[in-house]
Amino acid sequence: MKYSPLLAELISSLTCLPGVGNKTAQRMAFQLLERNREGGRTLSAALHNAMEHIGHCKQCRNFSENELCEICQHPQRSESEQLCVVESPQDVMAIEQTMAYKGTYFVLMGHLSPIDGIGPAEIGLDVLEKQITEGQYKEVILATNPTVEGEATAHFIGQLCQKHGVAASRIAHGVPIGGELEYIDGNTLTHAFSGRRAL
Amino acid sequence: MKYSPLLAELISSLTCLPGVGNKTAQRMAFQLLERNREGGRTLSAALHNAMEHIGHCKQCRNFSENELCEICQHPQRSESEQLCVVESPQDVMAIEQTMAYKGTYFVLMGHLSPIDGIGPAEIGLDVLEKQITEGQYKEVILATNPTVEGEATAHFIGQLCQKHGVAASRIAHGVPIGGELEYIDGNTLTHAFSGRRAL
Ligand SMILES: [Zn+2]
Ligand SMILES: [Zn+2]
Repeated sequence: MKYSPLLAELISSLTCLPGVGNKTAQRMAFQLLERNREGGRTLSAALHNAMEHIGHCKQCRNFSENELCEICQHPQRSESEQLCVVESPQDVMAIEQTMAYKGTYFVLMGHLSPIDGIGPAEIGLDVLEKQITEGQYKEVILATNPTVEGEATAHFIGQLCQKHGVAASRIAHGVPIGGELEYIDGNTLTHAFSGRRAL
Repeated sequence: MKYSPLLAELISSLTCLPGVGNKTAQRMAFQLLERNREGGRTLSAALHNAMEHIGHCKQCRNFSENELCEICQHPQRSESEQLCVVESPQDVMAIEQTMAYKGTYFVLMGHLSPIDGIGPAEIGLDVLEKQITEGQYKEVILATNPTVEGEATAHFIGQLCQKHGVAASRIAHGVPIGGELEYIDGNTLTHAFSGRRAL
């Protein structure tokens, strides 16, 4: 005996969510059917709307249901002389939550990874280069992740900036504020030492 | 800055799934948008179809999109003299996977729990009693969970059966096959001793 066709289809569809295997999908399906059909209907509609109507901001490539996202539409921010390059929409959210940055972003939606066939065009570097050459920006802040791929991507974009005479900077890496030295990994500690500043 | 309205709505809707908090919902939303829009569309449709069209089998109360579920429609099984009472659709699946039982089921969709206002009517015992009185069944197998509520529910249904002169049995509880005695909890071990049989 199998589950009824509609139930089997629901369980198998739920496994397209990251981290959801068959057992978890079953639990989710039963929970919705038994206790929260309204939640299931709302989720169905939200998924539909998101999949059909969320695209990318044509300026910064972040997710947006409009041509320009909220930040790129913002009167002051859109005239900023600073452009911050990040790998993902989540990075934009993390930086926005600090409220410390008032410029605009460019979201790569990934990083250079030649092994996976992800070259400059796949992460929008042609679009970025065009924006750099247009003269609005005085500084490009490279906030890609401190991973091998993130560093390589930052280095590559740094060279683009140099070519067009725009200053590029890399965010600082080191011991997190409040972090205890003895628990920091060696790589971070090495970064913290080589990036030391005179008092 | 907040996520765009459609993205915020998707993230908040995903948290209606059991075990999915805000962080996980964000990861799910981005994963679907970046890498699997087709999966998101399929899930949206599956949710819609399941929420709208899956009801309960009018005979056994298990989930079904038809009036009668597959088991209750089955020519041989529907004439069985055995009725197995379980708490949930998942229990039906677990028993079906053993292929050892060929009768029909009655799915309580819960258990008696006076504290939560769940009495006999809420778990369909009026329907069950009617089925018991109709004379088809010679044995009602009580396969509710070995919990306080499950035992109380089994006891209650056992008395219904007695009242109508139908035999009732309780599935055996004890040390699982392959289980090592030293790792079994005391309650199970007590059950195993009191339920011992002569060789
Ligand atoms: Zn934008
Ligand atoms: Zn049925």
